[in-house]
Amino acid sequence: MKQLVLIRHGESAWNLENRFTGWVDVDLTQTGIDQATESGKKLLSAGFTFDVAYTSVLRRAIETLWLVQKEMNLMWIPTVHSWRLNERHYGALAGLNKAETAEQYGADQVHIWRRSYDVRPPELALDDERNSFNDPRYAKLNKDDIPRGECLKDTVHRVLPLWNESIAPALLAGKKPIIAAHGNSIRALVKYLSEISDEDIMEINIPNGKPLIYELDDNLKPIRHYFLD
Amino acid sequence: MKQLVLIRHGESAWNLENRFTGWVDVDLTQTGIDQATESGKKLLSAGFTFDVAYTSVLRRAIETLWLVQKEMNLMWIPTVHSWRLNERHYGALAGLNKAETAEQYGADQVHIWRRSYDVRPPELALDDERNSFNDPRYAKLNKDDIPRGECLKDTVHRVLPLWNESIAPALLAGKKPIIAAHGNSIRALVKYLSEISDEDIMEINIPNGKPLIYELDDNLKPIRHYFLD
Repeated sequence: MKQLVLIRHGESAWNLENRFTGWVDVDLTQTGIDQATESGKKLLSAGFTFDVAYTSVLRRAIETLWLVQKEMNLMWIPTVHSWRLNERHYGALAGLNKAETAEQYGADQVHIWRRSYDVRPPELALDDERNSFNDPRYAKLNKDDIPRGECLKDTVHRVLPLWNESIAPALLAGKKPIIAAHGNSIRALVKYLSEISDEDIMEINIPNGKPLIYELDDNLKPIRHYFLD
Repeated sequence: MKQLVLIRHGESAWNLENRFTGWVDVDLTQTGIDQATESGKKLLSAGFTFDVAYTSVLRRAIETLWLVQKEMNLMWIPTVHSWRLNERHYGALAGLNKAETAEQYGADQVHIWRRSYDVRPPELALDDERNSFNDPRYAKLNKDDIPRGECLKDTVHRVLPLWNESIAPALLAGKKPIIAAHGNSIRALVKYLSEISDEDIMEINIPNGKPLIYELDDNLKPIRHYFLD
């Protein structure tokens, strides 16, 4: 039996303020730090171990991973930092709270963006300073491949190559990975692994800082999955 | 001009107690944490940046690196964790303080171990529980290749393959590395880079948590080096 552990970052400053975050690089709150530390303790006492880690290039996910690694004395394992595990890019909504968004675009439209699989939020204009074109984290990408606003379908499409090219081969080789990522990049993996429909995936919320354990068969089909309490 | 930044971990619990540490995995003290954080701030304000990191598999070096990365907003850069950057392995001296060692082996002998380049400390017996044979960090090494006690010459010999196979090629490819390591693994690199004799290297002490900057020419020969104050 193969084992995959997913963890969404602990509470961030903008989770707390209920703002669309996406690729904006906000910090964990003290609650978020505590959630990650607690998860490390629980994983350790439940007998989990890891020999490779995957995370995004955003600090709230990386710090969550580091706090888990510290508690488990696994600070030394190889780690892949990939933009493919970043949060869904919220485009022009980034930085707005839910009330501001409703005021600006109307509550019905916001509902559509939040609950539809394939309707993109308004993209960032090319000259918007919130774009990631000059961020060294994305320097290896072609400018055209850097998102300016994603629906969940877009996020799924850019997460899966990392699964296919790196995570799945690691599992098949007997590795025990941990993935510290974001609500929507984890949704993307859950949708793929558990074969969830485009409609149903929008109803699944991944809680902050709580390990999600997948037990997989030799073909990487899920046997069961559960949150570690 | 090429640039290489080396940093010895901040003060550790056993630095403070004046104990031989070596491969024992002790934590930073609060002073050590502050030293690393301060160094991150100084590197940032002096305009340094990094695109790859090298560190040991010991937590005092990794945490020093992480604290620097956090301050510099560089948590996402690829990182190589290598046992080759570990501290010199102090063999049977590990855990003893300087007074206990003098009592057990005589002050003259201790002076020889501390100041000679090629005299090994007493090795750990094969059945000593301080051996690293069952530590997953070293699972890829042959048991015979896991040190049980090193002189500085031994440390130099196992550090240099990482320089030759990974760090030097990265520099030649235009990368800007940071190396967070230990007193003697940094001595090994300093000896090699600055062509210091076997005798003179023993007199050079690398302070805790202070960035050592090397400016190198296109053949990786040092132009100058200095500590960042």
